[in-house]
Amino acid sequence: MRKVGIIGMGHVGSAVAHAMVQEGDFDEYVLIDKKAEKVRAEVLDLQDAAANQDAAYKIIENDYQALADADVVISAVGNILLQHNNPSKDRFIELPYNVEQVKDVASKLKQTDFSGVLIVITNPCDAIAALYQEETGYPKEKVIATGTLLDTARMRRATGAAFNVSPKSVSGYNLGEHGNTQFTAWSTVQVAGQSADALAKAKGIDLSEIEKDSIVGGYTVFMGKGFTSYGIASAAVRLAKVVVSDAHEELPVSHYQERFGTYLSTPAIVGRAGVIAEAALTLTEAEEEKLAASAKSIATKFEEVVGK
Amino acid sequence: MRKVGIIGMGHVGSAVAHAMVQEGDFDEYVLIDKKAEKVRAEVLDLQDAAANQDAAYKIIENDYQALADADVVISAVGNILLQHNNPSKDRFIELPYNVEQVKDVASKLKQTDFSGVLIVITNPCDAIAALYQEETGYPKEKVIATGTLLDTARMRRATGAAFNVSPKSVSGYNLGEHGNTQFTAWSTVQVAGQSADALAKAKGIDLSEIEKDSIVGGYTVFMGKGFTSYGIASAAVRLAKVVVSDAHEELPVSHYQERFGTYLSTPAIVGRAGVIAEAALTLTEAEEEKLAASAKSIATKFEEVVGK
Amino acid sequence: MRKVGIIGMGHVGSAVAHAMVQEGDFDEYVLIDKKAEKVRAEVLDLQDAAANQDAAYKIIENDYQALADADVVISAVGNILLQHNNPSKDRFIELPYNVEQVKDVASKLKQTDFSGVLIVITNPCDAIAALYQEETGYPKEKVIATGTLLDTARMRRATGAAFNVSPKSVSGYNLGEHGNTQFTAWSTVQVAGQSADALAKAKGIDLSEIEKDSIVGGYTVFMGKGFTSYGIASAAVRLAKVVVSDAHEELPVSHYQERFGTYLSTPAIVGRAGVIAEAALTLTEAEEEKLAASAKSIATKFEEVVGK
Amino acid sequence: MRKVGIIGMGHVGSAVAHAMVQEGDFDEYVLIDKKAEKVRAEVLDLQDAAANQDAAYKIIENDYQALADADVVISAVGNILLQHNNPSKDRFIELPYNVEQVKDVASKLKQTDFSGVLIVITNPCDAIAALYQEETGYPKEKVIATGTLLDTARMRRATGAAFNVSPKSVSGYNLGEHGNTQFTAWSTVQVAGQSADALAKAKGIDLSEIEKDSIVGGYTVFMGKGFTSYGIASAAVRLAKVVVSDAHEELPVSHYQERFGTYLSTPAIVGRAGVIAEAALTLTEAEEEKLAASAKSIATKFEEVVGK
Repeated sequence: MRKVGIIGMGHVGSAVAHAMVQEGDFDEYVLIDKKAEKVRAEVLDLQDAAANQDAAYKIIENDYQALADADVVISAVGNILLQHNNPSKDRFIELPYNVEQVKDVASKLKQTDFSGVLIVITNPCDAIAALYQEETGYPKEKVIATGTLLDTARMRRATGAAFNVSPKSVSGYNLGEHGNTQFTAWSTVQVAGQSADALAKAKGIDLSEIEKDSIVGGYTVFMGKGFTSYGIASAAVRLAKVVVSDAHEELPVSHYQERFGTYLSTPAIVGRAGVIAEAALTLTEAEEEKLAASAKSIATKFEEVVGK
Repeated sequence: MRKVGIIGMGHVGSAVAHAMVQEGDFDEYVLIDKKAEKVRAEVLDLQDAAANQDAAYKIIENDYQALADADVVISAVGNILLQHNNPSKDRFIELPYNVEQVKDVASKLKQTDFSGVLIVITNPCDAIAALYQEETGYPKEKVIATGTLLDTARMRRATGAAFNVSPKSVSGYNLGEHGNTQFTAWSTVQVAGQSADALAKAKGIDLSEIEKDSIVGGYTVFMGKGFTSYGIASAAVRLAKVVVSDAHEELPVSHYQERFGTYLSTPAIVGRAGVIAEAALTLTEAEEEKLAASAKSIATKFEEVVGK
Repeated sequence: MRKVGIIGMGHVGSAVAHAMVQEGDFDEYVLIDKKAEKVRAEVLDLQDAAANQDAAYKIIENDYQALADADVVISAVGNILLQHNNPSKDRFIELPYNVEQVKDVASKLKQTDFSGVLIVITNPCDAIAALYQEETGYPKEKVIATGTLLDTARMRRATGAAFNVSPKSVSGYNLGEHGNTQFTAWSTVQVAGQSADALAKAKGIDLSEIEKDSIVGGYTVFMGKGFTSYGIASAAVRLAKVVVSDAHEELPVSHYQERFGTYLSTPAIVGRAGVIAEAALTLTEAEEEKLAASAKSIATKFEEVVGK
Repeated sequence: MRKVGIIGMGHVGSAVAHAMVQEGDFDEYVLIDKKAEKVRAEVLDLQDAAANQDAAYKIIENDYQALADADVVISAVGNILLQHNNPSKDRFIELPYNVEQVKDVASKLKQTDFSGVLIVITNPCDAIAALYQEETGYPKEKVIATGTLLDTARMRRATGAAFNVSPKSVSGYNLGEHGNTQFTAWSTVQVAGQSADALAKAKGIDLSEIEKDSIVGGYTVFMGKGFTSYGIASAAVRLAKVVVSDAHEELPVSHYQERFGTYLSTPAIVGRAGVIAEAALTLTEAEEEKLAASAKSIATKFEEVVGK
């Protein structure tokens, strides 16, 4: 029996739930939101879909204790309104508000027997993952943020489009913060098995445009629809499926890294136990510096708000 | 190659698209909205999901000509704001606004070679389907509204919950208008093969509460989240899949009925050619009267607004 | 985490496994067969598929202890060769051979902590389910045979074809033995919500031909390919999914029935606890007699071979 | 509407069909086999599954004309018995027999309006693809054999197992003949983004054992179950899905290569038009020699049997 909890029924949390029930990914869903009438509405709306869907499933409403035997819990709490007057486009602007939310959720999680993997979408997700880990005391490898899994998908989409291949035939990663200090590690990117750098030179393609698109592409979405949802939802769905099936797949996700003393995204092998292993990563010197700088930025901003 | 067009990228249209791409239902999607930046945002958000999804697909943006070889086009245009100051909860309040939208869409559809099935979600969907059919001149059997497919799903959800069985083990229908004059035809409803009426009497269950829930259940969703999306999206997805696979499945959908001179929902056999056949329907006398009254209500309100 | 065991890697057991891994139904598969090189071959063949499939999963080979936390175990042991010189087409001819197999499997199951639902495909499946239940001491509601779920699918296929509707728009059941004494309970059969009897009369369709087809249809398959596999595999897959998702769906499956003192198929509500409830069943007098005769036949033949 | 034809209803062809209908990959299936009673049996067995499956679909039996509007046709004709007394394990032993079969199929295909992609499973698949292309006159890019897509999946399975990662986190290819002269191009293989060569040295893993396993792994399956089916079926299913969805995915498949004057497997970008483009391939000198030798072996054996 597969069981997932989703905490926070905003645009993203509910899109995650809808994608999952439509695919039949889990057998039981525990949907939680502080706004009782909001979660009620989403549960009803999903249940109104059940007779027209292939899969069968059960939805449990606003019950933390029901998370005890969940395989995965996804934190999607957040307040998109904070972003609407945010000229800097810095996801860290959400941190002060979300710190209180997250402390509350963490204290409730601790009162349950939940021992699965906690997937963090709530932004700034690197910092929030760190906060969740501290507050819950869960093993570090079991608290993971989607991190640059989404940004990497954006990079693969844009790179694939530039070279006329499927995003799935692009490998390599965006690394670092799920935010402005991230970067595409072009030395890791291959298009159909060939170095993206070399192919781009041969074809006169400007990779820096693609990188920019992968980092700020979300803002086009945000400006056009007022929020982002489907990209991040599918990243979270994939991560949850990799966890529950113990796939040992390599994914660029945000996890705690001893060498930086913080959460940030580099590729890791993910399974039912969370992060099973670091994937080795061979970067250029310049990329190493960007990664260190991104890590430092996360750590600094985290300390400013959360303290130590 | 399966191809679908979705016109109107509001909450419902985009939820339909997300459900479909996550399931891999179609190979090509043509997404259309008058607000260019809105459809751009939804397309990007969906494409940002592609690298993390199983299925591959192509999205075409705001191009009516690309509908020429579509199997199905779904009309999801509408303006949910019209419902927000609508004490009567009557979906007909959207008609005057949507008439103009629909005429515009229909004129553009007519300029394409589209010859598949047009599925109407736009409310009031019975009247809008009639309007689309008139404006496009498409064969009546190829213009279908989701109608009470959603309300029937609500009835099956509520009935299943009352008797502790899956909604899929409940058969029977809500009939008539996808609106306030509809009703549950209890004489058609079976729970695990037994008459719902008889079971309800034996167990002291009040079916009229379930019927009310199925008709106004959408308002609870609407009040809690500001709109409804997942229930109607899954109804449209199912209908589109039944069409493209030529399933010949029996579904309560809104289609033109000679005997009433209007569109309204009764069970029909649906396939790639649209409505293949009427499903025979044996109702009680009281139910027949309700159905006729609902048909009359649709026709009257339609004429008031659209004229003849 | 969803986990299933399949015991017996013949044509049917391996078709069940292939269908499940292709759909991604479970996260862990325990595949068991007395022939070590056979199960090795099937495991390798399935694993050779993994890189080209969407879902991730783990396969465990010939390890009864790994069944301890399985949601479902499926018994597909059997020897199809026994059917190849069997002019009577009576599945009971397999009983003596399978009794020994089943006792062996049951004794090994008892040494595990398995507490899920045991689904029996092994023929004659009604008798074999009874034997498993006796030998393991598992609760009666947790030992279920696919029974006439397959024959009912055949009846729905043939009825749907006759009336040009989807098999899913046909309800009603074949009842009794998964064998020669079963029958189609036509009083329960509806086509798109209408009595099959009435429709058949109106259209001049001979239902007895359809019934015959549903009962002996398997022999055409058997004669043409030497065994049957896909029909029964999909029945078992569906039943396993209904169990693990706790769907509370109504299915005609073989379960122990106090009133007959034997296993036989009538509709039941199935979920994670196995048979949750009997579905009420209103038969004609003639149908009741056929059901009782079928039950008696199962019980008699069972006693002849297994004793009491 | 998605449509596929499968010619040859042996173990492999029918496993392809079963996987596809269970997943709901296509809307129409045209199943063809010279043995009328065999294809009849498989069609019935699949249709007996329909009522218990999620997807709806139509099966057409032994009708070449129905292939006219198919997206994909899969050739799975062959005679596994030829392999049963074949100490050399050389798939070319099947060529003389299959040449006649294939000429017959090709002549029938030519009498249809089929203009989609022809996927060849029939062994020796490189030579058979060449033969099909010659006999039908189809564009070279539209006749593709599964080639080393299966062997590559075996290599990824074995490599993933050795390094405890998902086969999907292994990239790189087996190249050349789908047969004894193929090889793993280790310089192309990456495990979670790192060179397999380097990782293997660091961990003391013997890659030549993995390579051997990937090439002869099929024989273990063959010896244990008498044939191979699921691995090759899933390779064909994936290839068919990549074609119909126009995925532009990079896959190691057998296609005609000007520089070698023969069919053999190297990575190509595949879409609805078949092979869209060669993927660039940077090999070591030793690998280039192996590839040329494999190409020569295919060409020589092909000429011996088929002539020029």
